[in-house]
Parts: sequence; structure tokens; C-alpha cells
Amino acid sequence: IPKDPLFGGLLADGFDEQSCLSRYESVLYRKTSAYKPSPYLVSKLRQYEDLHKRCGPNTRSYNEAVKQLKSGRNVGTADCKYVVWVCYSGLGNRILTLASVFLYALLTERVLLVDRGKDMAGLFCEPFPERSWFLPMNFPMIKKFDSFDQNSRESYGNLLKNNKISASMRSLPSYMYLHLTHDYDDYDKMFFCDEDQALLNKFSWLIVKTDNYFVPSLFLMPSFEDELNKMFPNKVTIFHHLGRYLFHPSNHVWGLITRYYKAYLSKADERLGIQVRIFDKGPAPFQYVKDQISACTIGEKLLPEVDVSGFTMNPSKKPKVKAVLMTSLVYGYYENMRNIYWEHPTMTGEIIGVHQPSHEEQQQSEKPLHNMKALAEMYLLSLTDVLVTSAWSTFGYVAQGLGGLRPWILYKSENQTTPNPPCVRAMSMEPCFHAPPFYDCKAKKGIDTGKLVPHVRHCEDISWGLKVVDSHTEN
Amino acid sequence: IPKDPLFGGLLADGFDEQSCLSRYESVLYRKTSAYKPSPYLVSKLRQYEDLHKRCGPNTRSYNEAVKQLKSGRNVGTADCKYVVWVCYSGLGNRILTLASVFLYALLTERVLLVDRGKDMAGLFCEPFPERSWFLPMNFPMIKKFDSFDQNSRESYGNLLKNNKISASMRSLPSYMYLHLTHDYDDYDKMFFCDEDQALLNKFSWLIVKTDNYFVPSLFLMPSFEDELNKMFPNKVTIFHHLGRYLFHPSNHVWGLITRYYKAYLSKADERLGIQVRIFDKGPAPFQYVKDQISACTIGEKLLPEVDVSGFTMNPSKKPKVKAVLMTSLVYGYYENMRNIYWEHPTMTGEIIGVHQPSHEEQQQSEKPLHNMKALAEMYLLSLTDVLVTSAWSTFGYVAQGLGGLRPWILYKSENQTTPNPPCVRAMSMEPCFHAPPFYDCKAKKGIDTGKLVPHVRHCEDISWGLKVVDSHTEN
Ligand SMILES: Nc1nc2c(ncn2[C@@H]2O[C@H](COP(=O)(O)OP(=O)(O)O)[C@@H](O)[C@H]2O)c(=O)[nH]1
Ligand SMILES: Nc1nc2c(ncn2[C@@H]2O[C@H](COP(=O)(O)OP(=O)(O)O)[C@@H](O)[C@H]2O)c(=O)[nH]1
Repeated sequence: IPKDPLFGGLLADGFDEQSCLSRYESVLYRKTSAYKPSPYLVSKLRQYEDLHKRCGPNTRSYNEAVKQLKSGRNVGTADCKYVVWVCYSGLGNRILTLASVFLYALLTERVLLVDRGKDMAGLFCEPFPERSWFLPMNFPMIKKFDSFDQNSRESYGNLLKNNKISASMRSLPSYMYLHLTHDYDDYDKMFFCDEDQALLNKFSWLIVKTDNYFVPSLFLMPSFEDELNKMFPNKVTIFHHLGRYLFHPSNHVWGLITRYYKAYLSKADERLGIQVRIFDKGPAPFQYVKDQISACTIGEKLLPEVDVSGFTMNPSKKPKVKAVLMTSLVYGYYENMRNIYWEHPTMTGEIIGVHQPSHEEQQQSEKPLHNMKALAEMYLLSLTDVLVTSAWSTFGYVAQGLGGLRPWILYKSENQTTPNPPCVRAMSMEPCFHAPPFYDCKAKKGIDTGKLVPHVRHCEDISWGLKVVDSHTEN
Repeated sequence: IPKDPLFGGLLADGFDEQSCLSRYESVLYRKTSAYKPSPYLVSKLRQYEDLHKRCGPNTRSYNEAVKQLKSGRNVGTADCKYVVWVCYSGLGNRILTLASVFLYALLTERVLLVDRGKDMAGLFCEPFPERSWFLPMNFPMIKKFDSFDQNSRESYGNLLKNNKISASMRSLPSYMYLHLTHDYDDYDKMFFCDEDQALLNKFSWLIVKTDNYFVPSLFLMPSFEDELNKMFPNKVTIFHHLGRYLFHPSNHVWGLITRYYKAYLSKADERLGIQVRIFDKGPAPFQYVKDQISACTIGEKLLPEVDVSGFTMNPSKKPKVKAVLMTSLVYGYYENMRNIYWEHPTMTGEIIGVHQPSHEEQQQSEKPLHNMKALAEMYLLSLTDVLVTSAWSTFGYVAQGLGGLRPWILYKSENQTTPNPPCVRAMSMEPCFHAPPFYDCKAKKGIDTGKLVPHVRHCEDISWGLKVVDSHTEN
């Protein structure tokens, strides 16, 4: 009998087990998390579930709110308020933004509704009891989602820029579009000011498009700070808990995960995950990346050195077997490492098996099996004991967060050479916010938001990024 | 402590363990053979070892015999006689011919000497105690070996054809070249007649070039029949015993074998080997071969069917894990099978992991690591529990023989379609002689040599080939 299938109360009980096996079986594959959710977070989630039950799709309240939305007027009397997450960007990005928007929903007592895009429904189980988290297909604005961008006249940023909105206005639109993607401008970023939040609070419908894990900046907002501290006394566990709460792979994806795990990983004495995501143009694999992977894994003693002379002879009869799970869009890094450890003995006598589930060559987010495999691989990485990730990649952030792992991050290479040092140990398992605002809402001037509080710092892999770290971390 | 490291007396004791680990450690990886060598075979081998000690390279007798060879005259007084195996053809072929020539040496009380070619010395340990089996580098004729071919005037066949040799001749050459490769003619094939053997017996030096496992035809020669029956009361074990006796992978190759086995195969509940060797021209992988592999493995119940609808849900919590070891010059067949069993559950709930050590793309017998890997892969295939091989391939014959496995043979495809049936169970684990003679030496006329005795039959994969089978096998 599994020890703690509901992760210390993080998950609600009472789901149909067959409809979502991963929710109940993941405990068979995961080590018990070192991090317990706080009782306050647990109660917040139970409250949210009640709210979702009461306000979710096709409830009376929902229908009422949709009617108001269609009317085009903001009457301000709706009894439920909503935030709609628009499906956008790669799968790793989506998972991080969905968690961010959910946290925002918790903080603002909104109901989260999820645009299913092309494939969201096939990837994940429903996380909330009884009511779906998916936006109903007949939601009036779905067709508009694709066209929302930096230039949309109805975005909060553009309305501000054009002086079309203010707290004192009598009549407000029936919804607000929040443009929070990498190309957002200073006006869009006003989202992160308390005053603006007060205004946004007047909207029953917020529509958000983002490819950013914007949680670190929520921590810098006085209006959310207290609540966040109560929910997450251990600050670095935000995505860890919310990710495990929200993202249960569908049965189809769970099949990919469990079959792969049992066939290739389960019998090893130890598992090392290596996520290789290279953004450099040109024909992969690159020699400088091969060198970087070796330099990091051997330098940090995650893998043993090989004896190229070949004289080390099986020092132990029952050697330790390490399984390396590599994920990458290409094949060459895997093949290189697999051959190294096949062709040479290790100095320690350890046996290293190297495995890669797929090599899809290109990001092809439209193919359904493609993203199923991508999700399976992020999840499999999260089941390893030790993790190496690639700088800049949200794919890796998801794995580290779900796994509760503080990875070694392979630095991004400049001018096609192996960085020195090749990698750095992450300060925390939290994802990095790639495009944070640098603005002091009170003083109304620019400021380095990575230097305001000890628990929000610049990221290891992106110098201008922000991430939540343990306050005791040395800089 | 290993149960029977010397295979029931097959192997001589007293070697230096460190110099050839495979000789002593193979018992840790192999299941005990179901076939014991006969006491008569064992005593023959011990006798041979004594002969080799007395006559091997750099002994007085050897030096004497080389002196005679250099003199160009056949004085017929040498106290040791030799048969020189010339290194020729792919590695699978070489292993089979070396075993054939060794058997011929046993039958004719000659000393086997091995031309090391480019890489033989790096691939195998010395099989005989004290004296090397390798032809010394300064052997007078080594440079000539490459030029020996069907047209060589000094070949036995050409001397016969040109009436340059007969039993009654006074003066004979100091050596005889035996041309026994696939392109040999009816005169060369006189080698398989007793009368000719009597003549050949007069030569202290026989030089053999062959790419044929010619053992089945030795069984049809009255002069050898008795001795063979005594050595091999169980006729189908000839290559099995001689192969295990002769071919001990070098420490370097043994490292490849043991590391791969421990990293990828050892923990599985069952191992299935699939050797894919396709001789069709064009860009592999071919769909009809993929289909053939599935049709054979599923049709013969070697692997479970998959549930393409995906509804079979982990029926068992501790499912059986089967490791498939595939070998092939190309990557595509492996990838196809690996994906099938990753993407779909099996009907039985079994978990199938698929592994392929290398994909060298082309036969490149000159690269040293290439043949080391080839040998490692043949050997790894021989460690599986159940084996599927490809028609026509000596690579597969070696695996089945060393493993003592009666494989399923994938038929050779005609006109790029999947054969029906896709495969056939081999009658025995013996290799097939691809180019046997069809000649009745007594009657001096053609004859179907596959119909003479119950234990020498036409092969499953090559209709004109010959192989040794169990006499009780139904036709
Ligand atoms: N299967 C698989 N897909 C990958 C891998 N790396 C990238 N991808 C694909 O490329 C997309 C990358 O986008 P995203 O997940 O947002 O990660 P990021 O671009 O690294 O931040 C993924 O959604 C996958 O579709 C990988 O290692 N395995
Ligand atoms: N590593 C490896 N090499 C192979 C494989 N199949 C063929 N080869 C190479 O191709 C050669 C084929 O010649 P041979 O061993 O005589 O086998 P045959 O041609 O199949 O009878 C081998 O010696 C290898 O060098 C394979 O599955 N793995």
C-alpha cells in the first residue's frame, strides 16, 4: 500500500482512480518529497476546490458571468470572478505559466479556466474535483485568443498607454486582456503593481497570455506577500507543490512514463537525468556541448571518469549500475555518452547505462504524440535522483520542480565554446522568471528587482531573470 | 564460485586468468550448456594441445618445417604437419572457417596456425596453452596470402585441372594452397574426396583460404566419418563446442561485452536477441523488414502483441520485463520496435525494453573497434535466452552456435516484400555451409549431397546449403 498517495493532503481525495492513474500511482515512482505542504496551503486548495465547484464551467454563476461578458458591460456584480489561461508556447512554458496563473487565481480568489488549445486535454487529467478546469468550447472569445498580442488595443498595457483606463472610470469593459509574454512592454508590466491589481480586481474576466513563470515578482508585491508567506513558509517549494497538485499526466502519457521507467530505469541503483536543450543554430551535435556535458558530470562527480587506457579491470563483481536518462531533441549527445561508457571502463568500476526516449529533431508542438512524449520526458527526468539541466529551458525547470531537485545547470555557451565552469548548482528548485519587470511601483522608477529581498534573486542561467530562493542562500 | 568454468573439461586449465578474463568469467554470464562435450572430444583436445606445444611456433619442429618450406622441396620427413588459416572475409565468416579448419586439423593431426590479418590478435585470446596459435610474423609466405585466389596457379584445384599433380608424382611442391572460398570450382572441391585427402596428407604445409563453414561435407567423407561420430556423438554440437573452446574474447572485447550486459541486459527477467542483417540494396530501414520482424516475433509468441487502442491498463504491478537485444548495421529497426513498445501497452502487460549497442551503418572491417564491437555483439546475442537471426548471415550463426540456441531465422525477402511465413525455427544450432560440393567422389558424378544421410540436410535459409542436424529431425 503506497505510503502517502495524496502527498500530505496536497491532493484532494475522492477522484475516480481509473480515470487518472497517475494521481494515485505516482507515489510508486517518486521518492517521498522532502517538502510537506503547509496546512495553510492545503486549506487554501480545499477552499479553491469549493470555489471551483461552485463557479466552474456550466454552473449557474458561470453562465451568469458569461452572459455579462457577452453583454460587453462590466456591471461589477458577478458572484464569481475568473482568470482564463490562454494556451501559448511550448509545453514546458505552458506548465509554468499555468502554475503561475493558478497561484494568481488563489491570491485573487478567481476561478482558473484553461484554454485547451490543440492538446491540453489529452495531456493532463482534471485536477479539481467534479468540475472541469477547461474553458467550455462555446466560450464566446475562444476564437480571439490567437490574435491577442502586444498590439491588441484591449490589452491592459495598451489601454494604460492610451489613457483609456483608470481606477476612476465609471464604465469598464467586460473583460481585460493581460499581455504577459516575453515581448511585453512597461505598460503591460504595470500588472505587477498593487494599485493596478486593485483596478484589475474590478473585472470578472481576466484573460492572460504568458510564457513567463511570473511568480517571483508576485513575491515583491506587498498585497500578495503575506498570503504567499503563509501558503509557502518554505518559499522555494511553490512550483514543487503547485506542480504536483495541478499536473497529473493523462492515462496515455502515464503509460509512456511507466513503461519507460520499468523497461529502462527501474532496476538501476541510481538514476541521473541530463536534459540537453541547445538553442544554438547549426547542425547538432556540437563538440563543445559534448565536452561541456562531460566536464560538468565528471567535474561535479555526478558520473565517473573513464579509463581511456582501458587498464582498469572490473574491480568489483557486483558493480553499482547507474542509469543516465538523457532527453534531447537530437540523438548525438546521447550516442556520444553511451559510447564513451560502453567503450571504456570507469575508474570506479561503476557501470553506466545511457538511455534516451526520443529524439524528435525539432520542436513540433502540433503533433499530439510529440507533446505527450515531451511531458513523459519531463516527468521521467523528475523521477531521477540527480539532475542536470540546460540553461534557459523551461522544460528543465518543470522536471526540477516536479522532482523537488536542485539541478546542476549547464551554462549557455557563448560563441560556440565550452563555458568554464561548464555548469553551476542551482540555488533552488524554483523556475526562473525570464522577463521580470524592473520597476519600483511606489517610487515610479527603475530598480533592480533582484536585489530587493533575500529570497528573490537573479537566476543562475539568466542574469536578468528572477527566481525565488531560500533566504539563507549565499549570494 | 562458478559452477563449471571449464565447460565440462572442454577447456584446459592452467592459463593466466588476468590475461584472458573471458575464459574464466564467461560462466558468470552463460547458462550452463545443455550439451556436454564427449570424453573422446576432450581427450582429442588435450592431445591436440600437446601436439601444439611440441610443434607450435618457434619450436625446433616448426623451425625445421619452415626451413623445408623455404627450400621449396617436399622431402616428406617433417615430424609436424601444419594447416595455415588465412584471415579472410567478415568476422562471422572468419570465426566459422577457423572452427572448420581447426576441426580439419584435429582430423588430420595437423597443427593449426592462424594468420593474424589486421586485427585477429586484438579480438581473441590464445586458446592453446603455452604456444601461440598465431603464425609468426616472419613466416615466409605471409605477403603472398592476399594474392591467393581462384586463379592462383599453385592452388590444388588449378594443379589438378592442369594435370600438374597426382598421387603418383615423385616430386611434390613444399606446400599446397587450398582455395575454398565461395567462388571455388569443381576442381577445388575435390578437397572433399578421400582420395585427394590421401594426396594432401603428403604435404607438411597446407594453406587454406575459405569463407565457408565446410564441416557438413566432412561428415560425408568416409575417412573422417568415424572419428567425427566419436568426437561428436551429438552431431549438432560441433560448432557449439569448438566455438566455445577456441573463441575467448580478448580483455578489451570482454569489457565491451560485460559492460553492455550489466548496463542494459542483466536485470531483465528474460532476454531476446534479434539479429537483423539485410542484404538488400537501398536506403534502410525497409518497411517490409519492420513488418517481418513484428510478424515473426509476435507470430511465434516471442514478443507480446501491443494494444494499439491503448485500453489495456497495467494489469500487473510487478510485470515481467523482457530485454530485446537487437543488432544491426542500421538504426531504424531498433528505433521502430523500441517506439512500438514504448507507445503502446502490451496485451499481456509485459514490459519490453529494446536495446542496440551500435549501428555502424556499413561493414568496415578495417576499423579495429568495429570488429571488436561486432564480436561483442555476436557474443551478447549468444547470451540471450531466445534468438532470432537473419537468413544467410554467418554473424547470426556464430551467435546461435556459441549460445547453444536454435534460433528463429528471418527468411530472406524476395522482391522487397515480407516473406510469408516470416521466419522458420532452425532445425539445429549448427551453421549452414553456403557453397557445398554436389559430387559423389566414388561414382564420379553429381549428386544431391543434402539427401545422402539423415544428419546432413539442406539449410532452412539457403536451399542449396548444407547443415548438420539431429538425425531425428523430421524433414
Ligand atoms: N520529447 C522532447 N521534446 C523536447 C525536448 N526538448 C524540447 N522539446 C520540444 O520542444 C518544446 C520546447 O518548449 P518548452 O517545453 O516550452 O521548453 P523550452 O523551449 O526549453 O523552454 C517542448 O514542448 C517539446 O515539444 C526533449 O528533450 N524531448
Ligand atoms: N557491430 C555490428 N557489425 C555488424 C553487424 N552486422 C554486420 N556487421 C559487420 O559486417 C560484417 C559482416 O560480415 P560477417 O560477420 O562475416 O557476417 P555476414 O556477412 O552476415 O555473414 C561483420 O564482421 C561486422 O563487421 C551488426 O549487427 N553489428
